[in-house]
Amino acid sequence: MTARRIDGKAAAAALRERVAAGVAAFRAKAGRAPGLATVLVGEDPASAVYIRSKNRATAEAGMESFHHQLPDTISEAELLDLVGRLNADPAVDGILVQLPLPGHIDASRVIETIEPSKDVDGFHAMNAGRLATGLPAMVPCTPLGCLQMLKDELGSLSGANAVVIGRSNIVGKPMAQLLLGESATVTIAHSRTRDLPDVVRRADVVVAAVGRPEMVRGDWIKPGAIVIDVGINRVPTDDGKGRLVGDVAFDEAAEVAAAITPVPGGVGPMTIAMLMRNTLVAAHRRAGLNDPEGL
Amino acid sequence: MTARRIDGKAAAAALRERVAAGVAAFRAKAGRAPGLATVLVGEDPASAVYIRSKNRATAEAGMESFHHQLPDTISEAELLDLVGRLNADPAVDGILVQLPLPGHIDASRVIETIEPSKDVDGFHAMNAGRLATGLPAMVPCTPLGCLQMLKDELGSLSGANAVVIGRSNIVGKPMAQLLLGESATVTIAHSRTRDLPDVVRRADVVVAAVGRPEMVRGDWIKPGAIVIDVGINRVPTDDGKGRLVGDVAFDEAAEVAAAITPVPGGVGPMTIAMLMRNTLVAAHRRAGLNDPEGL
Repeated sequence: MTARRIDGKAAAAALRERVAAGVAAFRAKAGRAPGLATVLVGEDPASAVYIRSKNRATAEAGMESFHHQLPDTISEAELLDLVGRLNADPAVDGILVQLPLPGHIDASRVIETIEPSKDVDGFHAMNAGRLATGLPAMVPCTPLGCLQMLKDELGSLSGANAVVIGRSNIVGKPMAQLLLGESATVTIAHSRTRDLPDVVRRADVVVAAVGRPEMVRGDWIKPGAIVIDVGINRVPTDDGKGRLVGDVAFDEAAEVAAAITPVPGGVGPMTIAMLMRNTLVAAHRRAGLNDPEGL
Repeated sequence: MTARRIDGKAAAAALRERVAAGVAAFRAKAGRAPGLATVLVGEDPASAVYIRSKNRATAEAGMESFHHQLPDTISEAELLDLVGRLNADPAVDGILVQLPLPGHIDASRVIETIEPSKDVDGFHAMNAGRLATGLPAMVPCTPLGCLQMLKDELGSLSGANAVVIGRSNIVGKPMAQLLLGESATVTIAHSRTRDLPDVVRRADVVVAAVGRPEMVRGDWIKPGAIVIDVGINRVPTDDGKGRLVGDVAFDEAAEVAAAITPVPGGVGPMTIAMLMRNTLVAAHRRAGLNDPEGL
């Protein structure tokens, strides 16, 4: 291995410290703590783990955490009603409805009901559009975390050839917007892309977000590139426990790249830290304060 | 010249015929004509020409045209007030405020005040976000016209390597979203891009929207590529009249490309035809009807 291993845990810890300091400063100015409301419908174990992590991080940052646990028999109308109450609640700066939702509930209708200024996941079309047009927006946490790690590595991204693999609304598309905002030359590749290895070989920056275990091979990577691996895939092992791998064949890519995020311990920890950051930013904007600096 | 010359006038005329037929069908269903309100602040001669063309095209398509001519001394509050009245007017399906606006008026505030369902220019952040996330949107007219010409040429764009030069909110960025929606592999290049000729040489589809006369040279074009030239630049001539050229050196590129739009007579005519199309689509959506077919 020649590549630097980008330590997502350390970057996330540093960000959470900056957020905690920002929370203290906000309390002093606004006379209250920022508040994050989380909504979990049903009992999906993975979703429950995520929500617990988010609520714990919220408390650790000195923010108020309001958790709403709902049975998966709840109607869409009841859920929209709860979102409406959270929109109106002045103690709530951020609203996060954990996805996926049960099949009888239209997730996009739920997302579009969240007040955009409280949409700390950045999934509302208004926020996607504000990001796309260069206005202040709530930006999805995962690509925001990836961007932070890239800026920590490279300083300026201006003129860099960046390839984003994957075009989801949650990662790929906002990632491309963020890179474009930093004046990278951005290529968005996906399942229909012809000769993907050749496209990736031209990239100074690779962000892989496709959800296919170890799809990106070492010989696709340009020597000296920075590789950010968003994928978290569980693959079977002989002992039956399985293990987590990314979308990039780590050991191969690490022989060629200048720096690479591991899985786990790379992008993942940054995502929750960015949720804390977004909640703090939302609290500032809702209170009419300038965005906190250095976040 | 070996390239096909893409006839924007003919494509626009065909689209306007389809729109006129759609208007007649809408009148029969809804009992009224679609209506487009245009707002011109001040006396800028170029803006006045554009607005007259738009109003004439509206009438020719069988739609109602409501024109509001305002002095450039109008306050921002008065203009926002007019936009509010047009938002509330049931006879108005589309609202177009001609840009640029005088310096004392914040154009982005005006755009954000237009009801998104009536935003036939597609500049509102809500529409940019709906386009970015794959929801039904009002899409800016110029990139929509470019896409139509590309689909007319190529049928499917799936897997094509497309390069968009320019990252404006009005052309470059929505163009990239549209191409991505058609499953092209999309690269967005701009003034910070390194070795732009090399980036363009890989493209099956080139859309140039930078506003620099004949910047894209013939030897940048991959043999057999389709070239869409959005630029309209006036360059000086010996007789003092000047002449219009695009962002692409037409004669050079036409030796290499499979097809290319001329300037004038390429993208330009399609833009106004797409404004008519957007107004008709807005009327359908506001009336609770399915989008008209074939548009």
